[in-house]
Amino acid sequence: MPKYLTLTDYALITNSAPIKRQTHGWRAKCLQRLVRLDMPVPLTIALSFGVVREIATGAQMNLRHLLGHFPEGQLLSVRPSAELPQWGGPAAVLNIGMNDAMHEKLSASHGEDVATALYLRFVQSFAQHVARLDPDMFDVDVPTRAALDAALRAYEDEMEDPFPQSVAQQLADVLRSMARAWEGTSARLLRQAKGAPVDAGLGLVVQAMAGGMGVGYGTTDECGVGMIRFIDTTTGAPQVMGRFRPDRERQDDEVLFLTKDARGPSLEERSPDAFAQLLEYGANARKRLREEMEIEFTLEDGKLWILDAVTVPRSSRAAVRVVVDLANDGVILRDEALSRIAPKALGELLHRQVDTKARPTVLGRGIAASPGAAVGRLVFTSAAAQASAARDEPCILARRETTPEDIRGMHAASAVLTERGGMTSHAAVIGRGLGVPCVVGASQITIDARRKILRSNGHTLAEGDLITIDGTNGLALAGEVALLEPALDDRFTTLLDWADARRDIGIRANADTPADARIAREFRAQGIGLCRTEHMFFEEDRLTLMREMIFADTSEDRRDALDRLLPMQRADFIDLFEIMQGQPVCIRLFDPPLHEFLPHSREGMRFLADALDKPLSEITRRAEALAEFNPMLGMRGVRLGITIPEIYEMQARAIFEATIEVTRRGAPIVPEIMIPLVSAMREVELVKSRIDACAAQVRGRAGVDFDYKLGVMVETPRAALRADDIAQHAAFLSFGTNDLTQMTYGLSRDDAGRFMSDYVQQGVFAEDPFHTLDEDGVGELLRLGAARGRKSRDDLTLSICGEHGGSPEAIRFCRDLGFDYVSCSPFRVPVARLAAAQLVIAEQG
Amino acid sequence: MPKYLTLTDYALITNSAPIKRQTHGWRAKCLQRLVRLDMPVPLTIALSFGVVREIATGAQMNLRHLLGHFPEGQLLSVRPSAELPQWGGPAAVLNIGMNDAMHEKLSASHGEDVATALYLRFVQSFAQHVARLDPDMFDVDVPTRAALDAALRAYEDEMEDPFPQSVAQQLADVLRSMARAWEGTSARLLRQAKGAPVDAGLGLVVQAMAGGMGVGYGTTDECGVGMIRFIDTTTGAPQVMGRFRPDRERQDDEVLFLTKDARGPSLEERSPDAFAQLLEYGANARKRLREEMEIEFTLEDGKLWILDAVTVPRSSRAAVRVVVDLANDGVILRDEALSRIAPKALGELLHRQVDTKARPTVLGRGIAASPGAAVGRLVFTSAAAQASAARDEPCILARRETTPEDIRGMHAASAVLTERGGMTSHAAVIGRGLGVPCVVGASQITIDARRKILRSNGHTLAEGDLITIDGTNGLALAGEVALLEPALDDRFTTLLDWADARRDIGIRANADTPADARIAREFRAQGIGLCRTEHMFFEEDRLTLMREMIFADTSEDRRDALDRLLPMQRADFIDLFEIMQGQPVCIRLFDPPLHEFLPHSREGMRFLADALDKPLSEITRRAEALAEFNPMLGMRGVRLGITIPEIYEMQARAIFEATIEVTRRGAPIVPEIMIPLVSAMREVELVKSRIDACAAQVRGRAGVDFDYKLGVMVETPRAALRADDIAQHAAFLSFGTNDLTQMTYGLSRDDAGRFMSDYVQQGVFAEDPFHTLDEDGVGELLRLGAARGRKSRDDLTLSICGEHGGSPEAIRFCRDLGFDYVSCSPFRVPVARLAAAQLVIAEQG
Repeated sequence: MPKYLTLTDYALITNSAPIKRQTHGWRAKCLQRLVRLDMPVPLTIALSFGVVREIATGAQMNLRHLLGHFPEGQLLSVRPSAELPQWGGPAAVLNIGMNDAMHEKLSASHGEDVATALYLRFVQSFAQHVARLDPDMFDVDVPTRAALDAALRAYEDEMEDPFPQSVAQQLADVLRSMARAWEGTSARLLRQAKGAPVDAGLGLVVQAMAGGMGVGYGTTDECGVGMIRFIDTTTGAPQVMGRFRPDRERQDDEVLFLTKDARGPSLEERSPDAFAQLLEYGANARKRLREEMEIEFTLEDGKLWILDAVTVPRSSRAAVRVVVDLANDGVILRDEALSRIAPKALGELLHRQVDTKARPTVLGRGIAASPGAAVGRLVFTSAAAQASAARDEPCILARRETTPEDIRGMHAASAVLTERGGMTSHAAVIGRGLGVPCVVGASQITIDARRKILRSNGHTLAEGDLITIDGTNGLALAGEVALLEPALDDRFTTLLDWADARRDIGIRANADTPADARIAREFRAQGIGLCRTEHMFFEEDRLTLMREMIFADTSEDRRDALDRLLPMQRADFIDLFEIMQGQPVCIRLFDPPLHEFLPHSREGMRFLADALDKPLSEITRRAEALAEFNPMLGMRGVRLGITIPEIYEMQARAIFEATIEVTRRGAPIVPEIMIPLVSAMREVELVKSRIDACAAQVRGRAGVDFDYKLGVMVETPRAALRADDIAQHAAFLSFGTNDLTQMTYGLSRDDAGRFMSDYVQQGVFAEDPFHTLDEDGVGELLRLGAARGRKSRDDLTLSICGEHGGSPEAIRFCRDLGFDYVSCSPFRVPVARLAAAQLVIAEQG
Repeated sequence: MPKYLTLTDYALITNSAPIKRQTHGWRAKCLQRLVRLDMPVPLTIALSFGVVREIATGAQMNLRHLLGHFPEGQLLSVRPSAELPQWGGPAAVLNIGMNDAMHEKLSASHGEDVATALYLRFVQSFAQHVARLDPDMFDVDVPTRAALDAALRAYEDEMEDPFPQSVAQQLADVLRSMARAWEGTSARLLRQAKGAPVDAGLGLVVQAMAGGMGVGYGTTDECGVGMIRFIDTTTGAPQVMGRFRPDRERQDDEVLFLTKDARGPSLEERSPDAFAQLLEYGANARKRLREEMEIEFTLEDGKLWILDAVTVPRSSRAAVRVVVDLANDGVILRDEALSRIAPKALGELLHRQVDTKARPTVLGRGIAASPGAAVGRLVFTSAAAQASAARDEPCILARRETTPEDIRGMHAASAVLTERGGMTSHAAVIGRGLGVPCVVGASQITIDARRKILRSNGHTLAEGDLITIDGTNGLALAGEVALLEPALDDRFTTLLDWADARRDIGIRANADTPADARIAREFRAQGIGLCRTEHMFFEEDRLTLMREMIFADTSEDRRDALDRLLPMQRADFIDLFEIMQGQPVCIRLFDPPLHEFLPHSREGMRFLADALDKPLSEITRRAEALAEFNPMLGMRGVRLGITIPEIYEMQARAIFEATIEVTRRGAPIVPEIMIPLVSAMREVELVKSRIDACAAQVRGRAGVDFDYKLGVMVETPRAALRADDIAQHAAFLSFGTNDLTQMTYGLSRDDAGRFMSDYVQQGVFAEDPFHTLDEDGVGELLRLGAARGRKSRDDLTLSICGEHGGSPEAIRFCRDLGFDYVSCSPFRVPVARLAAAQLVIAEQG
């Protein structure tokens, strides 16, 4: 037996008795605010999450009490009101109360056409959303009386019951259908993807249709429905925008402009009073609701009704401008401005984006799995993607769904598109991990890899055709669409200046090249936290010298090759130091295994044999001898530094000589030298003594003094566990969370793709730990390492320099541990600056 | 100015005023014991470590006071007396006091030949050991008067001083030379290799030569010097052995037998009283000194003098028999018997050894770097070693010194010999790590790899010649020498029974095959702590099925291949369970990456394509797709188990069905199932639920109940750090220290050989952490893991199952952490049993 629910537990939205978002949802809350701002909001009743939940379980409803608040014959609307607008909800239902009697009454007052159109629209809407009938059955071209009768008959045939005439029954059916839709699987997944908890509730708002009928039908020509905004949603600049649709039965115009416009009539001209009132309401709402609102209104015979107001949807760029402007206008505090921007949204600003001015052809919509946009030639296999990358030709990899075998292809592609899969599918997880724009589950698209054809909406694309992927919005677009480079305006800069004034943890950038370093400066990174030096040896002329060094038979030959590398390396450092203008630069000594510098093909070997004037057999023998079973765990980092000390000595000399040179040029610097892959204290002690000796030698030769700091990159679990020993010889410890994650999990990042998506889907890992810092495991080593390191050295500088460094969660984690700074990729520096400020604000608020 | 040392700080060895080993050394201590046993020990004076140290620094000595104890004209000896006999010391110097006057006096009493021989021998010894002159200059065939005069002249020419005539000067020179020899580098390294601390001291013992002259020269035929032992040094069985060399001037015999012997005259017959007295002294010494002693004596005109007694040198086997017999005879307690055997020595017993009865030709002596003996054909390159291994032909790799490029060769060889290097050379460190017998630094041997020739002592061996390496004693032997298989007699069994009665930590064995399991039983392991199941899939018929499984296109095909593997796997487990007779068997589920099961050659691929009836291109494509950058950190262990659940399900079914079968046959067992490579709790939860379901299914089908335990192999740092979570779903945690070491250090065992010896030599790592458990780093994870695991589950079973499990240090470490058992290779089980008992005894003593 269904429960019988006498619906008395509702809230009449008035000025008093405050409504809470946590019980009645954002819309109810917002409507109450509008009421409090003295806006003409029609009578509204809010049902709480609890009541809606009971309705969903099938309780019978007695709505007499509730309906008593509305005058006899009042048409009603019902709208969803979840806790946050982005969690969505079922579609609104309007015109509840339309029935044969109302049709008759309205025919008399407004004419039969109006009455018929309204009734028919309600039957269509009820049939589709409440009775869940096929909408096609109710589709008509012109709303005639015959069409209405046909619709009512069709309803009766399908439901074996006439169309409900009682407003109480109509409303009860609408409420139940909306309550149940909220519990559906797809609605649940959708809102959970936006961060809603499992038990998120739905509130419902029952509102009198404005005025008499409340649908913008009147007896004069000042009738219609409209929406008005006061900013440009793309840029955030002040501008009145919106639409006004006049009562079609009274006027010829389809849609009016809001403001005066040479192209046609406008609301401003036709109803200047109402327009002025709207502007006033808007300004008032902005000030009192402290937000840019979008207002829905009805004009009925010149009388303005405010039906609803929501925060204006906006691009990330506009969002930044809105909060900065609000703060500058004194509407909100700077802290509030900082808190309102999701750091991730700021990150999107730094990706390339599809130009909003472009009008591209949408091939299909899917899930926005990894943000950013890219243009490239369509490929259907990993092999083709790799071939394309080898030709330096950007490509987009399209697969029905990706598998671990596609990883190399995903590496090579500029973006990835799949027909199947969700936010935790292989393509999505790996795409986010790689930072490759990615749209998954674009189910209208058919990808036929065998025939190398992509079909969608009547379009057919073949391999090699240009296509654009918008990973930020989940779109596949035809052809080459114009992309916007990240546009960082002065509001962006202002917001981040405010962030800098608040945050209490340093932000540096990982930068290997002068180009990286310039971006780091531009984004106001407080120095370089990780400068990997190995790339400097991969350039053509240097590679040859590196190979000579590797094949040297004696320490002298080795030193000779390195001596020729020295001036190049010194020039690299002079460049970096000059760009960074005295800000700290932390240089990681040579790290990769030597075999990375050898050719891999037989042909390359033969070429090398010629170049070095050695027999091919020796080249291949040495290359084989250098090959490793597990290069990640092999002869690299400090192990090379200890076994072949000449390399680190050359690098130290280059660093010190560059230091002297830039100091002479007037930009003194204290370089930081970082030892990679340390696992034992004695490694640090040994390298330190050699580098100290090298410094003494350079000082002596140049007759100039300089300072430097020597520290350790903590990448092995053992280095974290022995941080107390190690800190005795290190001025700083920087946690390299990429390698540390690999070793803590016993998991190679390059090989993890084979099962990572399975793991994330089955909830074995909450997220790919290479993407999101694993606070429980890797984080535990950071905790232990930080505590132990500090125990043996009070003034130890602590930081993180893995790719996690830019994520707000990792920054929170590091700040809680009292780290001095985080270092992240240059493009994540702004995100990190904002996230760091928010931590301080949250703590103090 | 050298210090002037009035040597009064010495100890006259008498019955009173106890001498300490810690100040005067083991020999002084032992001589005092002999005195206390009323043996006729000549007057002896002991110099303490402190005094000898002062002498070494160059102090001038006044020996008048000391010499005052000896009668005028007494010849003296000086012998070393370090704290422990195995720490060595300089060679003894005898006949101090011989000079022209004594020569004259002795000529009168004993004849000129005796006097000349004695004097000449002293001059030779003094020139070589004290004056450090070339011994060749003093070498003569017959000790004639002319030869003596020549020697004295040669001495004077070289030293530009006549041979010292004063006994005080002779003694001072001898003391100083011996004191300084102790400080020399090679002596220091030698004793440190045997465990001596850096500041180990040397005591010296000055003793009157027995009787008048004390050298076994007398006027009757009951004269001579001898040594007697009461056991067979190889077996430890009671037997009088030794030698007696009569005064050559008085008797014709070169050497006498000690006991009656058909082959010639014996001391027993010629001096029955002295012989009887020796037996009595021996029995007395054994009882009172509680050891088997070897007694050095002099017989002078029938009077017996006891010069010295040392513990009998003995093989490991004899050592075991001696302590068991002493304990059985009530001379020592069982605990003392257990304490006296070094666990490592017991380990040597379990290696093959060179038969002590063999009389091989010694090619060279070097450092005993890795114990055990092996015979094989000589090879000079790693390539030749690998080729030899491919032919199943045992080989011995001889290199001047090994380098990282030789690692595969070392893997392939049965033993390794190098010309250069010490205990921490590459060959030594890697040899110990691999468990390959190894002799390094055999410097008399010349190894010419280019000409493929080994030369030594006039022998020349070519590639392919047979050679024997005795890694236990540091010998290279010509030809094929008879080797003894490990001989485990009843004393061995008895000692280990005593150990079992004392120890309080369990010892299990790592055993994969029935053969391993049988050895484990024989050595009384308390079950199998680690049964790796993957080898079971490498056998010919199974490999084909594995490959079918890997190439299966559907889950059904995969299951079909696994269904055919099931009965084989079940039979494996039935075998193991039956052998272990109800003792626990801990089975690790499938661990290696799948690509290990694929052929590596093009030919193998083609063969496989035929076998599976698939195109070659598909085989190579799949093989490429399965290849990994870092297999150690890739798709293996529980990652496979979760991604391809059919494998673990098949294994679980095989285990459970085997359990039912052996229980039916009357040997009930509770199998333990261990999940490898876990890094997150949810992995365990998932696998556990599947295995529990499988158990329910098997129970249901068979209608029989059984128990089992499910646990986790802790091999990743993260598993140790999250042991609290993981223990919620695991009945036991077993630390796999091999992989855990690799991940904690970020160091692949297979690749570490490239620099490990450098690291150990430079003291970066104290020892190869794959050989000796790293207590500071890996051990810290064991500490954390154990504490965290126990916190969430009181009854959690903890153990270690890496290769470290058998080492006494690791057992101590695990016992201190309260582990339930250690598991080690079957051959290390006896070592572990003894080591565990010693821990209890040491704690209680």
